[in-house]
Amino acid sequence: MNENSTPASAGLADPDLLDDLVAANRILADQGVLDGWGHVSVRHNADPERFLLSCARAPELVCAADIMEYDMESVPIDLRGRDQYSERFIHGEIYKARPDVFAVVHNHAPPLIPYGVTGVALRPLYHRAAFIAQGIPVFEIRDCAGMTDMLIRNNQLGRALAEVLGKKPAALMRGHGATVVAPSLPRLVTRSIFLSLNATLQSQAMGMAQGGAVNYLDPEEARLIEAREGYGASRAWAAWKAKALRA
Amino acid sequence: MNENSTPASAGLADPDLLDDLVAANRILADQGVLDGWGHVSVRHNADPERFLLSCARAPELVCAADIMEYDMESVPIDLRGRDQYSERFIHGEIYKARPDVFAVVHNHAPPLIPYGVTGVALRPLYHRAAFIAQGIPVFEIRDCAGMTDMLIRNNQLGRALAEVLGKKPAALMRGHGATVVAPSLPRLVTRSIFLSLNATLQSQAMGMAQGGAVNYLDPEEARLIEAREGYGASRAWAAWKAKALRA
Amino acid sequence: MNENSTPASAGLADPDLLDDLVAANRILADQGVLDGWGHVSVRHNADPERFLLSCARAPELVCAADIMEYDMESVPIDLRGRDQYSERFIHGEIYKARPDVFAVVHNHAPPLIPYGVTGVALRPLYHRAAFIAQGIPVFEIRDCAGMTDMLIRNNQLGRALAEVLGKKPAALMRGHGATVVAPSLPRLVTRSIFLSLNATLQSQAMGMAQGGAVNYLDPEEARLIEAREGYGASRAWAAWKAKALRA
Amino acid sequence: MNENSTPASAGLADPDLLDDLVAANRILADQGVLDGWGHVSVRHNADPERFLLSCARAPELVCAADIMEYDMESVPIDLRGRDQYSERFIHGEIYKARPDVFAVVHNHAPPLIPYGVTGVALRPLYHRAAFIAQGIPVFEIRDCAGMTDMLIRNNQLGRALAEVLGKKPAALMRGHGATVVAPSLPRLVTRSIFLSLNATLQSQAMGMAQGGAVNYLDPEEARLIEAREGYGASRAWAAWKAKALRA
Repeated sequence: MNENSTPASAGLADPDLLDDLVAANRILADQGVLDGWGHVSVRHNADPERFLLSCARAPELVCAADIMEYDMESVPIDLRGRDQYSERFIHGEIYKARPDVFAVVHNHAPPLIPYGVTGVALRPLYHRAAFIAQGIPVFEIRDCAGMTDMLIRNNQLGRALAEVLGKKPAALMRGHGATVVAPSLPRLVTRSIFLSLNATLQSQAMGMAQGGAVNYLDPEEARLIEAREGYGASRAWAAWKAKALRA
Repeated sequence: MNENSTPASAGLADPDLLDDLVAANRILADQGVLDGWGHVSVRHNADPERFLLSCARAPELVCAADIMEYDMESVPIDLRGRDQYSERFIHGEIYKARPDVFAVVHNHAPPLIPYGVTGVALRPLYHRAAFIAQGIPVFEIRDCAGMTDMLIRNNQLGRALAEVLGKKPAALMRGHGATVVAPSLPRLVTRSIFLSLNATLQSQAMGMAQGGAVNYLDPEEARLIEAREGYGASRAWAAWKAKALRA
Repeated sequence: MNENSTPASAGLADPDLLDDLVAANRILADQGVLDGWGHVSVRHNADPERFLLSCARAPELVCAADIMEYDMESVPIDLRGRDQYSERFIHGEIYKARPDVFAVVHNHAPPLIPYGVTGVALRPLYHRAAFIAQGIPVFEIRDCAGMTDMLIRNNQLGRALAEVLGKKPAALMRGHGATVVAPSLPRLVTRSIFLSLNATLQSQAMGMAQGGAVNYLDPEEARLIEAREGYGASRAWAAWKAKALRA
Repeated sequence: MNENSTPASAGLADPDLLDDLVAANRILADQGVLDGWGHVSVRHNADPERFLLSCARAPELVCAADIMEYDMESVPIDLRGRDQYSERFIHGEIYKARPDVFAVVHNHAPPLIPYGVTGVALRPLYHRAAFIAQGIPVFEIRDCAGMTDMLIRNNQLGRALAEVLGKKPAALMRGHGATVVAPSLPRLVTRSIFLSLNATLQSQAMGMAQGGAVNYLDPEEARLIEAREGYGASRAWAAWKAKALRA
């Protein structure tokens, strides 16, 4: 295949997966994690080198018909003149670097922003956010690209973000937002919601402790929680989805 | 009865009690006290050694048909293959230890989390939360079980929580949430809502006082308020229920 | 008239006034100023010695049929077995003491509570809350009644509150809530909403100033704003009412 | 034309522009930027010396039929007895002074108030609020008019505000609110929402940093972001508008 040609499709995606991807968009918008500029993707069920991502649509308005198939270079299979998310390269580069990752979200969740600009490290104090114990790095775009408009506009910047992310479940992006990854859409949604909640609770706890100790999760507690992670996620998903689709 | 056999049923529960239990689920979800993983139970009207609890359903979606009957070992009378809450043992062990308790809720209310991890004691500064004056202990699961995934997965852990709860109206659970008890469902709902509100107001007051004194309720004031507690609860219940069922 | 007999009615109240009183109940509930236990009253249009107040109903559920007529002793004209607000005496005693007052609300607005328990005085920093410049006293029920359940259960306690209120637009009630008064229902609603908002903004400003000066309204600015108060209230009322009745 | 006569109309405005102006009113109310007293205007598409502004209506209730045409002295072309916003002079004076400005909003967004009264300067820490790097002056009405009721009641006060605004994208108004300007309605809406969000995040970051450094946007980053500003605004606009019209 010529490198400028349109990549081949992996075929129609599982309708349930598309339905879950639409639900993930709607849920994360309804829960205040995604604003009108965020985006969420999932790997294609038939081909790990393809992923599914909406055309440039605000998450709360995404429908199944908006979902497009992309290859690992973040090139769409069937653009048909639709607008694309400028930062789609985040998704392709992470899927390339992280075979364990099946879902990716780029968000601008407000509670995360202060952590990216103050050097205060996120630490887990709430059981549902135990994955934070693995470490949440901060991506400083100045380190790889100097002065920019902050957007991940190409594969090179996507790769730099994927490198800072490393093996971690999420990376903050200074002055911009965050990118969260997970082995499934329900865990992605859960991680995104509780990353924000832990951020809020941690700053409250630090304020209340007035320099005294905060009792964070022990690394072994965090490991044991992660080992059964996904627990109860389907019932929370059902409630979040019902609420988001009603909104 | 063989210890592995299914326990006998106390018979059909009062439909009004079931209706109130569904309402309590919906109200506490709508008020932000219960997320998709919380659960609320009530003692069976016909047998104090039985309690009523939903199958594993998010509280805002619980219906009367989801309610199951459990015995004091937190074994269901009629499972019919439904999923159960992993932490159902909280309920059975508290009902065993506390004959005065008729309703129990396990929640993960965000405003309570910072208190569980900072050692700052909850104190009552708001009349509707006077029950806090009785003391709100913090359950540290490490003390009885070392490193865990934080869940109350069996009767032994449930018993340990019930012991820390003692005669009190609630116990915080470090890094996890809280368990609140009451002599009725309306008081349980009221206590749960105002435990969270007092937590929020207390941290605001402490911040504003900047180390100066906060004028908490006097123990005698708290006692007099509790003596007439339940005051007006039915009219607040009506409004909360209307709002929750509309949502 | 025998002092134990039912007082005489001033006749049917103006339907528009009843409609506004229902709207005030709904608006203040919808705006988060009134919880299920608050209440709002207005003077009868035909007799300044009568006032209108709902039977014991949560404000967001109050309908015109719930409104009862009371005399200055807070005795209802036509009880017909309905439950009454325990703290109705707040209203009667204030109407007696303050001929300039035409509407009274007793609320438990959360942002006000920390001010009542910390000794931090409310001061106006927002133009819509200029009335705060007149001073907002704190009612300490211990001063007149020692240890109580905090409720204004009789005319004697209502009188003590009215005395602390004096000529001011509102009084905080330590550990309990506040009582706000105004020359009309629209101004009462506006004052109640912006008293809470100013409380929130003031604690934020004090935190940001870190001990430095906060630039409050000058007393002359406050006087000039109050002199044209009511400005634009009808258009805000229309929007609040539409939202509250839609909820 | 006699200076007291009614100015001539520029003719019917573009229906799409009217539709966008109604949407801007509804969106900014729904997003919590505009209360019942705020107002938003846009330049007439057919004549840069005319602007469009609602009669005195709360923004969430504004309809196309409420929109009136004004000249640069903030005199309406066709009043027909309708009430006007007292502070309409803000709009005319800014349009006169700033040919680059096509849309103006006067708001009372709560998160901005503490900045106006503490001397803490707004600084951009969030990419969507990069325009803050141009500087956000604070208008102190005492400087030009001494003690007032804080309202911009005439062209002279409007001119004083326009002078403090200078070439900047917004000016805070001490104890009162803010005025934001932009080259289009979508950018005006976006700026207004993110000015408030940045204010909230900045005070959180300053609190967390406890006197340490906050990593604000570099002026060159801010310049590059502004150079492509408007990016994605149409998809956020679609979501905001759908939500606001549903409310």
